[in-house]
Amino acid sequence: MRYADLNTPLRTIMTPGPVEVDPRVLRAMATPIVGQFDPAFTHIMNEVMDMLRQVFQTKNQWAFPIDGTSRSGNEAILCSIIEPGDKVLIPIYGRFGHLLTEICRRYGADVYTIECAWGEVFDPDVIITEMKRIKPKIVAIVHGETSTGCLQPLKEIGHACRESDILFVVDAVASIGGVDVKVDEWCIDGLVGGTQKCLSVPSGSAPITYNNRIEQVLKRRKKVEQGIETDEDRRLGRSGPIIASNYFDLSMLQDYWGPRRLNHHTEATSMLYALREGLRIVLEEGLEQRFLRHALHEKALIAGIEAMGLKLFGNKEHKLTPVTCIIIPDGIDGESVRSMLLNEFSIEIASSFGPLHGKIWRIGTMGYSCRKENILIVLSALEAVLIRHGCSVNRGEALQAAMDAYEESLLTAKTATE
Amino acid sequence: MRYADLNTPLRTIMTPGPVEVDPRVLRAMATPIVGQFDPAFTHIMNEVMDMLRQVFQTKNQWAFPIDGTSRSGNEAILCSIIEPGDKVLIPIYGRFGHLLTEICRRYGADVYTIECAWGEVFDPDVIITEMKRIKPKIVAIVHGETSTGCLQPLKEIGHACRESDILFVVDAVASIGGVDVKVDEWCIDGLVGGTQKCLSVPSGSAPITYNNRIEQVLKRRKKVEQGIETDEDRRLGRSGPIIASNYFDLSMLQDYWGPRRLNHHTEATSMLYALREGLRIVLEEGLEQRFLRHALHEKALIAGIEAMGLKLFGNKEHKLTPVTCIIIPDGIDGESVRSMLLNEFSIEIASSFGPLHGKIWRIGTMGYSCRKENILIVLSALEAVLIRHGCSVNRGEALQAAMDAYEESLLTAKTATE
Repeated sequence: MRYADLNTPLRTIMTPGPVEVDPRVLRAMATPIVGQFDPAFTHIMNEVMDMLRQVFQTKNQWAFPIDGTSRSGNEAILCSIIEPGDKVLIPIYGRFGHLLTEICRRYGADVYTIECAWGEVFDPDVIITEMKRIKPKIVAIVHGETSTGCLQPLKEIGHACRESDILFVVDAVASIGGVDVKVDEWCIDGLVGGTQKCLSVPSGSAPITYNNRIEQVLKRRKKVEQGIETDEDRRLGRSGPIIASNYFDLSMLQDYWGPRRLNHHTEATSMLYALREGLRIVLEEGLEQRFLRHALHEKALIAGIEAMGLKLFGNKEHKLTPVTCIIIPDGIDGESVRSMLLNEFSIEIASSFGPLHGKIWRIGTMGYSCRKENILIVLSALEAVLIRHGCSVNRGEALQAAMDAYEESLLTAKTATE
Repeated sequence: MRYADLNTPLRTIMTPGPVEVDPRVLRAMATPIVGQFDPAFTHIMNEVMDMLRQVFQTKNQWAFPIDGTSRSGNEAILCSIIEPGDKVLIPIYGRFGHLLTEICRRYGADVYTIECAWGEVFDPDVIITEMKRIKPKIVAIVHGETSTGCLQPLKEIGHACRESDILFVVDAVASIGGVDVKVDEWCIDGLVGGTQKCLSVPSGSAPITYNNRIEQVLKRRKKVEQGIETDEDRRLGRSGPIIASNYFDLSMLQDYWGPRRLNHHTEATSMLYALREGLRIVLEEGLEQRFLRHALHEKALIAGIEAMGLKLFGNKEHKLTPVTCIIIPDGIDGESVRSMLLNEFSIEIASSFGPLHGKIWRIGTMGYSCRKENILIVLSALEAVLIRHGCSVNRGEALQAAMDAYEESLLTAKTATE
């Protein structure tokens, strides 16, 4: 059997990830590789760490990618600091809070969860009260819940954790590069970002950062080095079980990314080239400007959706800018609409998980996918497909409202500079 | 601070990995992505599984990549089948046997090791005798040890494991695509291949395969689904601890790769495009032809090395075809030679680990790097650099010997076809 050339359709990808990869990133991946200890490559490793610090808004020494998809970053941080029996508090407001819970339980943590309705976020005081009652070692939370399109405010929680000497771990997979994530200012101890969302880099790399407070936990834990156990643990009086995973052991990873350059895995060269280019694009655009761009296109999308007569899902006050959730109108088959969008317009939008499956659509406006022409085409296609499904919509209103929103923002910008 | 365009030197990479990426693979990675549940993408996932089965020479249902570097494949198989206290026997004949040991110990296995001198392999009977004495649940071993350039024969061990109902797990990271790896014929239950070696795909993907015997172990273990724990375990009477890792839980991964397509991670799209193209190239060349090519260039390299007056390291009878280890001559600084090769000729060769560090160089002849011009240039450069280091070599002999070897093989091929 012969296999054909790779020949994929060109899609307009308007999901909450993976989204369209920036063409510059695609080109970077086609660069011939160099060896992992080639000075040309270790220089690139250092550059990426430096760029990550800027995007994470941190002075942390450690900022590097885990060579795996986003959830591998969560697992790396959590498994490296959780010792069996450790108390972890996880406030859950969507699917990815459940993922954090699962990871922590697997590694033997004593997990306490609190939940709020999907589509809402927590009042920080609720979390802080629970935190003071339970006195966990770790509070772990999702920043932007792609499953519900909500954004949890973190600053107060972070400060409260720091005051009580609790480690604060954040999953910022969906928010990094799209909305503000201030690691140091919000007292976040460990944080994971995603590549395939607002960074517009393919999935397969999970940039993380962590501070000295987490490094101290790593230092206290038993170690193995280079696959050959040493008697260092006995000498230094380290106790407790070692980190269960070799692949995710941050002690080893930081020795590989740090000046010691101890061999661990073989760094995923082409993914690192991709991440470097993705971060470079973010920094060229500027964080502030990038967040404004995401907010602008969100505004135009919402104007169009509402003008069409559709309703948004979730608490608007805590909406995650790059994810817009739409309530599927009564009597409409959400999956049939998605299929028609894909088959007729080559546009992908997303459904959701668990209790929201079949109830909402999710439109992502992330990174390179977050462009005016994409907003206009998805609105126009959605309207046509809904009409084909017998749904009553306000015909021709969506594009006008979106274009109005763009013009208005131009006027606002002009007035501001005058 | 502004960051420059990615601008890496072009290297001749003659290490045991990562090696030069096939230009066709680089181009495939530059392809715009599609979503992970796009029918165009699930079709590619199925194609890759099918191609992997052919390269692994297996009829196993399960053959898919772990989204991580090679060692993540070892960890995925081992952590999914090891329950704390399980006996594992690991014969060690180089560095990567120590890695297997470390991974198994981290996940709570009761590990028994036997070791032989680096540069040698085990007489299968030695392993089989030990296996019968210890009665482990698992025997785990490296097929091709890149650290020593040795290849362990597996067939007898595999058959003995099957007879005793022991699971046989093999790290074929360095051998797959370069020498024969017969998963079914050798009774291998779980196997990991590497991408960045004889497949000439970048690091960042770890193709694995496993059979029904391993799947039965997975079925008996406790499960969690979709991040939300169910009472399925209680209903089915499953016992024991769950798999510690979410990322490496093969039960979940096979539900994602299988027809259920249950969401787990977001597949690393561009790495999968790369793997697909790399496998397609292997199958176009043909396994038999590819192994012959690796053997031909090994022969020419060895002829050149020996003609120069250098000595090979390790038992020649069990040499790993694509890795040639050379004893660093007395009084020569191995690292200085490597630096000069890199700086003057843009050629990378490798040093080794542990007891062999500073004692041998390792030259890889893997995948796309395994080409006549690369063999000739590395011999010519090594001779020049050794002369610069005051080393007495037989001047001008290496290239003649290598070219003789190539001509001789042409003659042999011609005679064979007449």
